[in-house]
Parts: sequence; C-alpha cells; structure tokens
Amino acid sequence: MKKVNVAVLGATGAVGSEMVKILEERNFPVGELRLLASARSKGKLMKFHGEDVEVQEATHDSFSGMDIVLGAAQNALAQEMRPYINHAGAVFVDNSSAFRYDDHVPLVVPEINPDDVKNHRGIIANPNCSTIITMVAVNPLNALSPIETMIASTYQAASGAGAGGPIELMGEIEALQHDEAYEPKVFPYQLAYNVIPYIGSPSDDLYTTEEMKMQKEGRKIMHLPEMRCTCTCVRVPVVRSHSISVTVRTREKISVAEAREIISKAPGCRLFDELSDKIFPMPLLTSDQDLVYVGRIREDLTDDRGLTLFCCGDQIRKGAATNAVQIAELLL
Amino acid sequence: MKKVNVAVLGATGAVGSEMVKILEERNFPVGELRLLASARSKGKLMKFHGEDVEVQEATHDSFSGMDIVLGAAQNALAQEMRPYINHAGAVFVDNSSAFRYDDHVPLVVPEINPDDVKNHRGIIANPNCSTIITMVAVNPLNALSPIETMIASTYQAASGAGAGGPIELMGEIEALQHDEAYEPKVFPYQLAYNVIPYIGSPSDDLYTTEEMKMQKEGRKIMHLPEMRCTCTCVRVPVVRSHSISVTVRTREKISVAEAREIISKAPGCRLFDELSDKIFPMPLLTSDQDLVYVGRIREDLTDDRGLTLFCCGDQIRKGAATNAVQIAELLL
Repeated sequence: MKKVNVAVLGATGAVGSEMVKILEERNFPVGELRLLASARSKGKLMKFHGEDVEVQEATHDSFSGMDIVLGAAQNALAQEMRPYINHAGAVFVDNSSAFRYDDHVPLVVPEINPDDVKNHRGIIANPNCSTIITMVAVNPLNALSPIETMIASTYQAASGAGAGGPIELMGEIEALQHDEAYEPKVFPYQLAYNVIPYIGSPSDDLYTTEEMKMQKEGRKIMHLPEMRCTCTCVRVPVVRSHSISVTVRTREKISVAEAREIISKAPGCRLFDELSDKIFPMPLLTSDQDLVYVGRIREDLTDDRGLTLFCCGDQIRKGAATNAVQIAELLL
Repeated sequence: MKKVNVAVLGATGAVGSEMVKILEERNFPVGELRLLASARSKGKLMKFHGEDVEVQEATHDSFSGMDIVLGAAQNALAQEMRPYINHAGAVFVDNSSAFRYDDHVPLVVPEINPDDVKNHRGIIANPNCSTIITMVAVNPLNALSPIETMIASTYQAASGAGAGGPIELMGEIEALQHDEAYEPKVFPYQLAYNVIPYIGSPSDDLYTTEEMKMQKEGRKIMHLPEMRCTCTCVRVPVVRSHSISVTVRTREKISVAEAREIISKAPGCRLFDELSDKIFPMPLLTSDQDLVYVGRIREDLTDDRGLTLFCCGDQIRKGAATNAVQIAELLL
C-alpha cells in the first residue's frame, strides 16, 4: 500500500497523543509521521512503532510534504493553520469545532456518512465527542425510520476537558481526604462528588455551546436538517467515557425488538442490553476501546413513536482520535 | 401546643436518624420520642434536644401510647408493623414503597397535595426521593397548565442507597489509590469514577422499579392520572443530593419567563438560574438543606409546549425525612 505522510497538530495533548497511538494500532500506512505542538513541547520524544519521534514546534511552515494533517488543537490554532496546511497540499482532518458548521466542510462519522468525505475541499471536520457517541447509537434507528426529535441528557467524563480534567478531579479527591483546599481551574466548580450541568459556554436560548452541538452536528451527520434536539450536558466525576441517556422519536414506530436487532448489527455498536442480568453500558466498561455500547433500550412511555436508551463510549477514542483516523482511512 | 408522642421506626438508619434531627430542628411538639430499630441497635443512645434517648427493639408491642409513627424501614417491616401501629391508635407516616400505590393511602408532598392527608385511614405514604424532588420542581408549572408528559434522567447520589452507599464509594476510591481490590456490595458494580444506569430492580417493560415511580407516584401526587413519564435512573459517584434533568410538556405553552416567575415563588423551590453567571443547581449546593434548587430552565427545542430544566435536592432531607415530618405537621 502506498505510504502517506501524516502530521498530528497538537500531538502532545489528550486527543493528539491518542491519535498517534491509534495510527499505530490500526497500522495506518504512515510514511513520515510529523508531531507538531506548541514551543513548550518542542524536543519531547514520543514513541511510534517502537521508534522515538521528536516533537516539533508547529509553525506556518510545518506542513510541507504532508498528505494528511490530523488536528487536535484549539479552534484558534486550527483556523490559523488551515490555509498553510491546504497550501502545502495536505488534507486537514480537524477535531476542533471551528469548521464544523461550514457548509463546504464535511462533518463525518465513518459509520454513518462516509460518502460525505468525497466532497471535501481540503478539510474534513471531526464531530463533537458526545455527538459522535450518540449518533453511532441512534443512527441505526434512523436507518429504519427518520429521527424527528431527540431528548438527551449527558454524563460526561472529566477527560473530555483535556488531560487536565482528570488531574483536577483526582487532586480534589486527595485534597478532600486531607481537609485541604483545592481551587478548581479546569471546571467552574468542584467536580469531585458533584455534577455540573454546564459544559462549554452560553449559546442560543439559554443552551450551552456543547448542548447545541447535538442538534447542529446531528442534523449534518445524519442528513436530517429538520431534526430537533433538546440536550442537557452534565459533567460527572468519571475519568473517561461519556454516557448519554437519550429518547428518540422516529417518523414511524420502531419496536424494541427491531431496535435491538438493527443495533446488534450496526457498525461501531455493541448491543449491551440484558436488564435482568444487569447488563447495560457503563463508562468503566467502554474506556480504552472503540465501540459504542448501547443498552437500556425500551419504549418511550410518552410517545408511541419513541424509544429510549443509554449509550456509552470512549470520548477520546471513538469520540475524537479514532474517528479522525477512520476519516483519514477513507481518504486513502 | 398539645404535645404528641412520636415513634421513629428504623431510627438508626440514614433516613431515620435524619428524621430525629429534623423533628428537633423544626421544633415538632414531641411529647415522648420512641426510637425503634432492629435488635442489633438496641441500647444505642441518640441525642434529641440535648438528651440521650435509648433505642428500643421494634416489636409488635412497641407502639402503645404513640400518636404518630414515622417509618424509615424496609417494605417488609413496614407491612408487618402497620396493623400493630394502627391498632395502637397511631398514624403511620411511612417512607417505604409498600403502600404508595394503595388507592386508600394518600401519597403526599405537603407543598403539592396537603389536602390528601385528610383522607388517610391510619397511614400516609411518603413518596420516592427522586420523585419528591422532581415534583417540587415541576408542580409550579402544572399549576399554570397541566403536565401531560415528562422525560427525566436522574443523577442519584450514593446515599440514596442508605448509609452504606457513601461508605462503599469512599472505600472504592481508597482501594483504587492503593491498587487494592474492593468488592461492591451495595451497588451492583464499582460506583467510583463510574455511572450505573440501574436502580431498584427490573419492573414493567424493561424499566426498573425506581424509574416507574416517577410516573406512578407523580400521577398520584399531582392528581394527573393520565400523565406519562419516561424516566432513566442513574447512580452517580456523588455522596448526597439527587439531580434530575427533566423535560416537561404541558397542555398549553408556558414561556421561560412565566416558568421562572412561578418557580421563584413556589413553596419548597429556589430558583437558581443565571447561566451567564454560572448559577445552576448542583448537588454540592443542595445538601443539608430542604429547598429544591431549580435552574437551566429553557425551551424544549423538540416541542412548542415543552420546557426543560435541571433540579437538585437533598434526597435524605426533602426527599425523605423532612417530607415525612412535614406530613406529620399536617396531622397536628
């Protein structure tokens, strides 16, 4: 297979370092691997297939010779670098939210809308983590009958805020054990033994930016421009893997049996649903792997055309790094 | 004020000991206080208004001379003791779920349906903890226009499983810090750094018993026999206070401004809702007090007649012990 040269922008962060790991795991045909980060991380060594790769400072001139750039940087850096990446002839697979709502930028979950990759103009956006996990779980239903509405409440892990999230959570727990103070910096309040119904920043109509992603990105990924979604995003004291409680209403009724059947066969899903045996998705089960676990599937008691379910997935892997590498695979 | 003799059945448990504390706090006109528990706790001393009260073993003969018995025991014991309590001439205010669905037993949240107390035949049931907290938050909307449906996802604290819940959670955290094993007994799986979408036991149509309470008890408390509710109950690694993300659909549209206005004046509620100032309910804020905090009030994007909100309350106090003492106050 032809080798391709891959750069990872933001290689030392939680998502970037996972991208490097997943390129190796999936045996992506990497020619040159270029690891880019801020000046602070310059010279740091990261392993790739047993060899040391030195981290370079990301500059406008960092992209020559690259075929694909996997972006795991903040919006501002993604926006700054995009023209230089494209000018160098590389395709930018970007995990920031900077380009997701641009009509000319495909927003792709490979299990759902792989063909959208074909329309790219040098950039493909990787969706929000909770959105990817939820869409992988509900899209099989959408294949049976179009989804009209969704009501979702999330249980999002500390690592969704980057590598600093779990450090803060653990720091708070230890400080509480020793009756010491701990000033939260990553989260607006103490996360230990608490839940915080606020992720992102205030957006439309008293929703947060994170909450609106489920509707805005869900519409684009599933090609459902009219789909309406009420989402409540809540941070919980979990280290890794996001969970979502979601009630989905489809145009025609789908039975629980039909839902179980199609989810059990859907790519990227694992049906994990035997209530009487206490089998249901939990974040501890879904960390460090790529499947979205789907369970607690039952009828929505408020609407004949509704189903409700609980799903969990590793938001750093399938919710970010793995999905980006899967998009890169579609480009091969 | 005439003094009344009060017994607490299950006085040494999480809810029972809180009942004793709240009888004192609210200056309930207690004549004799009789503390009843299993043989194991016999002779234990508990403080009431600065005096030691000795715990007695609960037997069929324990209730003579009592006016009110506050029950904080399991269903089986509540069922066993009920005839003896009533035969002794006492009114039983019971926190178990044994009698809640009996048509002849009022199920009361004093802020919502105080008049139902009048119909008692010697027993009044105290509702489920998550249900009380949710109903206090949404009933003000119901006063504006009848609630037709609710979709709720809960974030329930470890202490909802009794005093052993937080001990298990803390034990797991310490064991993980020392790389030791810890076998969960109170919860079906490790709760530390996890969420568990399973509370109670399997019930109707793949729902759990705990999930069905929201519909069954909500109907009875709000006098809405047709109200439909889809509920997902999830245990989270929080010590105290339950949180609920709930989307409510009313017969007529209620605006966010109207909802804020009525909730701000509703008994038992505290409007806590300024997104841009990061003011919203969290379990850390609502523990050890009696108000249900209500925030994140916004329009349901999936339905014109819907509103969505996030509420938190102390499930041991307002969700159990305080509500029971308030019912006892209605009996005075």
